Amino acid sequence: MKFGRPRGTRDFLPDEMGVRRVILDKVRNAFEMHGFEEMDTPAIELWEVLAAKGGDEVERQIYRFQDKGERWLGLRFDLTVPLARVVANTPDLTKPFKRFNISKVWRYEEPQSGRFREFVQADIDIVGAARIEADLECVSTAVDALRALGLGDFEVRINDRKILDGMVEGLGMGAEGKAKVFRSLDRLDKVGEEGVARELAAMGLPEDKAAAVLEFTHFRGQEAIDYVARELASSKAAMEGVEELKRIEALAGAFGLGGAMRIDFSLVRGLDYYTGPVFEIRTKTAQIGSIGGGGRYDRLIERFGGPPTPATGISLGVERLYEVLMEKIRAEGRRSGTAVFVASVNDAVAEEAVKISRELVGMGVPAEPDIMGRKLGRQLEYAEKKGIPYVLIVGPEEVRTGKFKLRKMAEKQETVTGLQGVPAIVR
Amino acid sequence: MKFGRPRGTRDFLPDEMGVRRVILDKVRNAFEMHGFEEMDTPAIELWEVLAAKGGDEVERQIYRFQDKGERWLGLRFDLTVPLARVVANTPDLTKPFKRFNISKVWRYEEPQSGRFREFVQADIDIVGAARIEADLECVSTAVDALRALGLGDFEVRINDRKILDGMVEGLGMGAEGKAKVFRSLDRLDKVGEEGVARELAAMGLPEDKAAAVLEFTHFRGQEAIDYVARELASSKAAMEGVEELKRIEALAGAFGLGGAMRIDFSLVRGLDYYTGPVFEIRTKTAQIGSIGGGGRYDRLIERFGGPPTPATGISLGVERLYEVLMEKIRAEGRRSGTAVFVASVNDAVAEEAVKISRELVGMGVPAEPDIMGRKLGRQLEYAEKKGIPYVLIVGPEEVRTGKFKLRKMAEKQETVTGLQGVPAIVR
Repeated sequence: MKFGRPRGTRDFLPDEMGVRRVILDKVRNAFEMHGFEEMDTPAIELWEVLAAKGGDEVERQIYRFQDKGERWLGLRFDLTVPLARVVANTPDLTKPFKRFNISKVWRYEEPQSGRFREFVQADIDIVGAARIEADLECVSTAVDALRALGLGDFEVRINDRKILDGMVEGLGMGAEGKAKVFRSLDRLDKVGEEGVARELAAMGLPEDKAAAVLEFTHFRGQEAIDYVARELASSKAAMEGVEELKRIEALAGAFGLGGAMRIDFSLVRGLDYYTGPVFEIRTKTAQIGSIGGGGRYDRLIERFGGPPTPATGISLGVERLYEVLMEKIRAEGRRSGTAVFVASVNDAVAEEAVKISRELVGMGVPAEPDIMGRKLGRQLEYAEKKGIPYVLIVGPEEVRTGKFKLRKMAEKQETVTGLQGVPAIVR
Repeated sequence: MKFGRPRGTRDFLPDEMGVRRVILDKVRNAFEMHGFEEMDTPAIELWEVLAAKGGDEVERQIYRFQDKGERWLGLRFDLTVPLARVVANTPDLTKPFKRFNISKVWRYEEPQSGRFREFVQADIDIVGAARIEADLECVSTAVDALRALGLGDFEVRINDRKILDGMVEGLGMGAEGKAKVFRSLDRLDKVGEEGVARELAAMGLPEDKAAAVLEFTHFRGQEAIDYVARELASSKAAMEGVEELKRIEALAGAFGLGGAMRIDFSLVRGLDYYTGPVFEIRTKTAQIGSIGGGGRYDRLIERFGGPPTPATGISLGVERLYEVLMEKIRAEGRRSGTAVFVASVNDAVAEEAVKISRELVGMGVPAEPDIMGRKLGRQLEYAEKKGIPYVLIVGPEEVRTGKFKLRKMAEKQETVTGLQGVPAIVR
């Protein structure tokens, strides 16, 4: 009898995990280079914490269960809720609090291509900074991570929730109704204009108003700015939003984002807690749509019992990055971390081979000896299969003289060297 | 209203997470230096997988729940079960398969000092190698990880399940009875000899046999070897076990473990799946008992539907390492990853400061600008609080001349330098 895995989860064998590790390390490094610091929170949270963020759809996706004390718990579905809980409980954090977290989250969704029930998010957030510079710092840091991964050809779509708020002011809907409109618009890519029109109609929105909402989403760039000046000039919120977008465009160059920002009124982002600029990063290198997104959420910390606290952040989708970069990184990298396999020609020198392998490790060379008493030919096959670039061959004569054959596997070339010479050759 | 965390879980703010990251990275590096490769599996497993390992006590500790399709799942309670599942399902793995996994596991235990419901284990295992060299490779690699952390003063207690099997042969108990005896002996440290004696009596073991079992646990080193030769010579299993221990002692020096191995018959390890040598690593530096342990488990892969496959492994307790090393690493390290805070003397140069910060990052110097429009004094306070070692001061004159004051915070010393000179100074 064999055993499976839960649907929508994956195992990563070393070959695949090596590729993921390259991505995770480069993203981490980009975050750290810009002064973001790592924070970790539990995978399990109290149910009331997960539910505090709100949104039925999200709640339906949570893995929820009781512990043995009958307390309701759940697996976290994002990294923002735990951040908000911690910030609300830790009033003395030095501000701005710039944290990153690269961790697994879980959502009970229908698994499909590129969608999983367990997946990794890479989040950066800045808490305690109200200025637009904080938003730009998040975007530019996320973009630097993509650049480090060779995905330099990107586009950042931007919009502002304040403009969206101004746009829906005239619809005569309550807060929940507005949130529904935003969630529907967020699905424009998936269900198309007709789909959204049907959903808006189902909410009871008259046809002309629904048409106006859909028309709004068509505007881009300067036309979008002009549209607000023309149609939403009476909305204080919308005018504030426009000022924010203008300021973002003015500062983009300093943050290394010159020419990459596109005002796009079809960008909504479904979560109801955004309060200002929202972002979505797309790479042009691969046709995979959004690779990350986020925005400003100045009221979320309050929902968790904290004082009013400005906050903004971006989440990169590590699974998307993995999908795009898998082949490329695999082609670049060698599969095994071991630099030198220490082969022994017979059992009598196996113990010496162990010592030599440990000496190499001591010199900073990743090495491993044979531990199975295999014949030399089988040992070489193993090194070959694992993609280990060098094999050091240990026989009685080599042990006596201290001179060893070091075989470069790719070229089947041998150099004779003392152990001290190995590090320089293999680096 | 504030929200809490599930009992037995923890948040790690950057100050603490930085310490954990040092430990995790050093352990990872030691594993990789010896040719172990990373593998990752889901945090959630099907219930039948978690239950296949056996043992009521373990099952009671599993966080168990149904998904929305009413399938029973659970959070993994160790990293060995997922490994066994993967190996059983992947017959073509290149052997020996040397993998590491440093990840979270969950157990519903009563939280107490140093025990948590969510904690990190660092596991190395070798699958497909039957020789004792594989066991020693695991022990020596784990010990190298401890050495890298400055815990060089350690002791490895060893025993062999075959000897324990030989010892209990005479008790006239079935497999489940033997497993119970082992689990009881494993609690010797916790409940003492009287406690174990009571448990053995409760299993129906006659007093003289219980006394013999307890006497057995007193033997150490050569006396232990002699005891087996004298009392258990008729047990094939026990004699095989002794040969394994002798071989381990003979090879210990080659694996860098000379003088550190102690045969100790009180070492049992509770899990019922061990089949050969078992190990426990204690550091003498801190009085915290076991910091890791493991052993050979040649029959476990079969329980998961795989072919008979030899395997051995060791698990390091990262939480124990954190407990021991927290203060030391914190004292050594600087708290922030940022090397240079780029301060602006007024808002007019804030944009220049952003550009300069990005230039420094481009030169490989972790840097961050002010993003809050604070007065210079407040900016310096922030850098101070965060433990950022250098502040570069940007004013209109500095922008004009390209010469900047770089303040070393600890010594309140200033150097005047061009941007190109910064990397050399801060390294």
